[in-house]
Amino acid sequence: MKLDNVTRKEFPNSKKEYVEGKLFPIQVAMRRIRLTDSVKIENGEKKKLSNGSLCVYDTSGPYTDASFDIDLRKGLPRMRQAWIDTNPDIERLDHISSEYGRMRLADPSLDSIRFPQTHRPYRAAEGKEITQLYLARQGVITPEMEYVAIRENQNLQEAGLESHITPEFVRNEIACGRAIIPANVNHPEAEPMIIGRNFLVKINTNIGNSAMSSGIEEEVEKAVWSCRWGGDTLMDLSTGDNIHETREWIIRNCPVPVGTVPIYQALEKVNGKIEDLTWEIYRDTLIEQAEQGVDYFTIHAGVRLENIPYSLNRLTGIVSRGGSIITKWCKTYNRENFLFDHFDEICEILKAYDVAVSLGDGLRPGSIHDANDEAQFAELDTLGILTEKAWKHNVQVIIEGPGHVPMHKIRENMDRQLKACHEAPFYTLGPLTTDIAPGYDHITSAIGAAQIGWYGTAMLCYVTPKEHLGLPNKEDVRNGVITYKIAAHAADLAKQHPGAHLRDYALSKARFDFRWKDQFNLSLDPERAMEYYKEGSKTDEDFCTMCGPNFCAMKLSKECAD
Amino acid sequence: MKLDNVTRKEFPNSKKEYVEGKLFPIQVAMRRIRLTDSVKIENGEKKKLSNGSLCVYDTSGPYTDASFDIDLRKGLPRMRQAWIDTNPDIERLDHISSEYGRMRLADPSLDSIRFPQTHRPYRAAEGKEITQLYLARQGVITPEMEYVAIRENQNLQEAGLESHITPEFVRNEIACGRAIIPANVNHPEAEPMIIGRNFLVKINTNIGNSAMSSGIEEEVEKAVWSCRWGGDTLMDLSTGDNIHETREWIIRNCPVPVGTVPIYQALEKVNGKIEDLTWEIYRDTLIEQAEQGVDYFTIHAGVRLENIPYSLNRLTGIVSRGGSIITKWCKTYNRENFLFDHFDEICEILKAYDVAVSLGDGLRPGSIHDANDEAQFAELDTLGILTEKAWKHNVQVIIEGPGHVPMHKIRENMDRQLKACHEAPFYTLGPLTTDIAPGYDHITSAIGAAQIGWYGTAMLCYVTPKEHLGLPNKEDVRNGVITYKIAAHAADLAKQHPGAHLRDYALSKARFDFRWKDQFNLSLDPERAMEYYKEGSKTDEDFCTMCGPNFCAMKLSKECAD
Repeated sequence: MKLDNVTRKEFPNSKKEYVEGKLFPIQVAMRRIRLTDSVKIENGEKKKLSNGSLCVYDTSGPYTDASFDIDLRKGLPRMRQAWIDTNPDIERLDHISSEYGRMRLADPSLDSIRFPQTHRPYRAAEGKEITQLYLARQGVITPEMEYVAIRENQNLQEAGLESHITPEFVRNEIACGRAIIPANVNHPEAEPMIIGRNFLVKINTNIGNSAMSSGIEEEVEKAVWSCRWGGDTLMDLSTGDNIHETREWIIRNCPVPVGTVPIYQALEKVNGKIEDLTWEIYRDTLIEQAEQGVDYFTIHAGVRLENIPYSLNRLTGIVSRGGSIITKWCKTYNRENFLFDHFDEICEILKAYDVAVSLGDGLRPGSIHDANDEAQFAELDTLGILTEKAWKHNVQVIIEGPGHVPMHKIRENMDRQLKACHEAPFYTLGPLTTDIAPGYDHITSAIGAAQIGWYGTAMLCYVTPKEHLGLPNKEDVRNGVITYKIAAHAADLAKQHPGAHLRDYALSKARFDFRWKDQFNLSLDPERAMEYYKEGSKTDEDFCTMCGPNFCAMKLSKECAD
Repeated sequence: MKLDNVTRKEFPNSKKEYVEGKLFPIQVAMRRIRLTDSVKIENGEKKKLSNGSLCVYDTSGPYTDASFDIDLRKGLPRMRQAWIDTNPDIERLDHISSEYGRMRLADPSLDSIRFPQTHRPYRAAEGKEITQLYLARQGVITPEMEYVAIRENQNLQEAGLESHITPEFVRNEIACGRAIIPANVNHPEAEPMIIGRNFLVKINTNIGNSAMSSGIEEEVEKAVWSCRWGGDTLMDLSTGDNIHETREWIIRNCPVPVGTVPIYQALEKVNGKIEDLTWEIYRDTLIEQAEQGVDYFTIHAGVRLENIPYSLNRLTGIVSRGGSIITKWCKTYNRENFLFDHFDEICEILKAYDVAVSLGDGLRPGSIHDANDEAQFAELDTLGILTEKAWKHNVQVIIEGPGHVPMHKIRENMDRQLKACHEAPFYTLGPLTTDIAPGYDHITSAIGAAQIGWYGTAMLCYVTPKEHLGLPNKEDVRNGVITYKIAAHAADLAKQHPGAHLRDYALSKARFDFRWKDQFNLSLDPERAMEYYKEGSKTDEDFCTMCGPNFCAMKLSKECAD
């Protein structure tokens, strides 16, 4: 396998830093951007004024730490393993529990594509509770909780600003179900992060092969790449060949929580024949993936037999893959969705590994015409019922939402979700605010995503320019991620989230000072900014080709101020 | 000159059509997209169901009419000339009135770059009033008013929907100052369009050279190109060489209204020395450009000496080119802005040609930090005063606004503008909702533009990916235009503007029917959509590489519905 394509380049003028915990021996990864000095002329003399540095939230993992030796065949360091090992309520199994997983492991024809290391899986000891939700409810602050508190706060601390985000605040938000830390005990490589509307808005990126294309190397490369640009979580939506092995490679090398939609693999196991899907196959798939380390599962338990007829009045029917699979199954047997019927058993499995559940929106609208319709809201109400069920099992919950929604109908989605789902974090795709721009749906959806993030959505699922048209390549992933970082950050600013403005302030100060490189280094995509700037400019002058020397407003404005 | 680069390709499966007026002998250009049939299987037999065609608003001018012979050296047909010639209150001058214009005309060294045709300029006869605003106030419906009523309405008519947009409604909106038709009598090539919040949201595109780059051919090419993708008006912001000649080529070949910022050329005339700017030079520039056919002037008359100190408290000072030029002039002489002092004379010039005034926002915020500050709103109040002055002269007015504004501060801009400026149409740059993404500012700003459009902004000034970094090339222009068409259309949908949903409906219907080509043909950028689709797909199957055959939700959903 060609495993040398992952991008390791450090960001310009940036350094990886680790902030130590106060409660636990933890090392919270940050990126520090060093800034150059401002130069002022005072009494004819040049005076240098330091601009210090800015610490920014960093999702890129050890890949951007030059001092770190990456070997994709070994996987990332298992940072959380020590924390897990000290928890007496967690046991280590001798073998993996999934029948299918054991079968794949025993198959010598897979040797060449199998991840070379094996790890004995962790799970809760018999009768023990280990989820972050359970612990939060018991008043316990975990290392993960301290980690995210530091991670969300470092820039505020340095700016001398007060923040309400303490480990205790984190614990309380989790205990109330308003936030989750997706952290399967079998994914100790991931750096803890939190999803909740009183924290920074997060973004999810999707990768994964389909029957049509893409191999393991490419998917690992895309995973590392999407984290590099700012993906906070990663969904592996593979539906093609060797899903089990692809996922193992991804998880072992992924510094952010990984989500999946287990029904995809279950369907592959029955060769795409929906009528052959059974609860037993699905159940084994959950265990297989939980023991690999998937941090959250999208489960379309809210698609109920009684709600399916609503979708018949639609312009675009059902556009969720999981939703349409379940619908077909229900209609084939005229039976209730087996995910709904077996939801308690599902929770029993999830809680043993602390896998969070992302309640899928199988009936999300696929066109402006279908937005906010009966089908969508009937399902949302069901998701509220399932939220309470999962919480009874101490399983962490997030709720999936939107799709295509015009701007004037976005707020209703947020308001109803908060009420129906008891403030469980909302996790939305876009929404796309118009249907008429295939090829640009990262933009149609960023408009909606920024708004719903402002209204309270905790995590935004990115959309790439290829949406509706094909699988994204690396450049599409980059465009999708940056677009969604913009939407999430615009939402943080609009929410007046503490410290959100610090990066804008530093960048605009650099811009007004003509510290071009600082401006670019502080931006979401320094490489792109530099590339565009260089296209036109021949020198490092105090102007760009947009205005030329005589028409630079900022230059004139500075002259006026001086 | 290389003049064969302009793109003339018709849009796929589309045809130019002309709808006849009822009141006047006018031909309103439209694009009709022909759709293929849906195929349904009924009792084992294939049944074809016609999807008809969809008529869409079209800004591309005669360039996309295959039956039309384009010769850039001759310019576009002078469609409005007949209407103008029949107006007894309009006279035709023997010579151009501007001293500078005559000098350029007499200079043989410019022969090689001069537009080959000359036209004697039109203007109001002595003591006569000719502006659309004057006529509207007199109760007169003009051919331009009927033109825009048909243009905004055709799709509604065909769908059998009621619309309030009649020629009389148009007249009344203009009479109240809530809308304008920028239509200089010297730009008869332009197809009339209307800017007002009770009509479709429009977008403006900027082109123009700087001292650093770009020749006449390239600017003409960009102008045609930006109209092709949907630019409703075009600003020529040239600040480089041969501004006069470049503009002539652009106007003669531009099917949409053209705007300029005359202070740019005035400054070029004094070799960039702001202290040498005078009212007389500026005045001659206004006349020069008005007789060439510029349809609206951005005039920074609202930057007042007394308001300049507010800008000193800012993080990024003054970021408007015009604003900073005026500020420097005011500070140099410690005198009031000469544009403010001479505003009545300016209006006297403008009304003679029916040039609209776009009151410039010289103190717009250039960073999130500076949004909605004293400087910005003090200027807005001045613009309100100037609006009333211009209206006294029957000059049509629009108001420029935003810049960098976080989402939670956008609404205040709209509310204050409506009040301070007596409902004159608002015309905003973006706003950019964060500072941290140079290279992606078409996106940071589309998020804000869609929102402010929804709140009532009549025209959105596009931003390209090169904003803050350099002059846009053709591909940047295309990305900027499509991004802003998305924002404008999302705003139309959110405003529930009549008929706005028809294109979304038709496209989504095509999508659900797997009529791929119809889907692409109905999209804002059919070429891009097709290109992305083909990248992955080898066949015209009923699925794309995103999901492959087994995981196509829409396919499953259709199976369930059948």
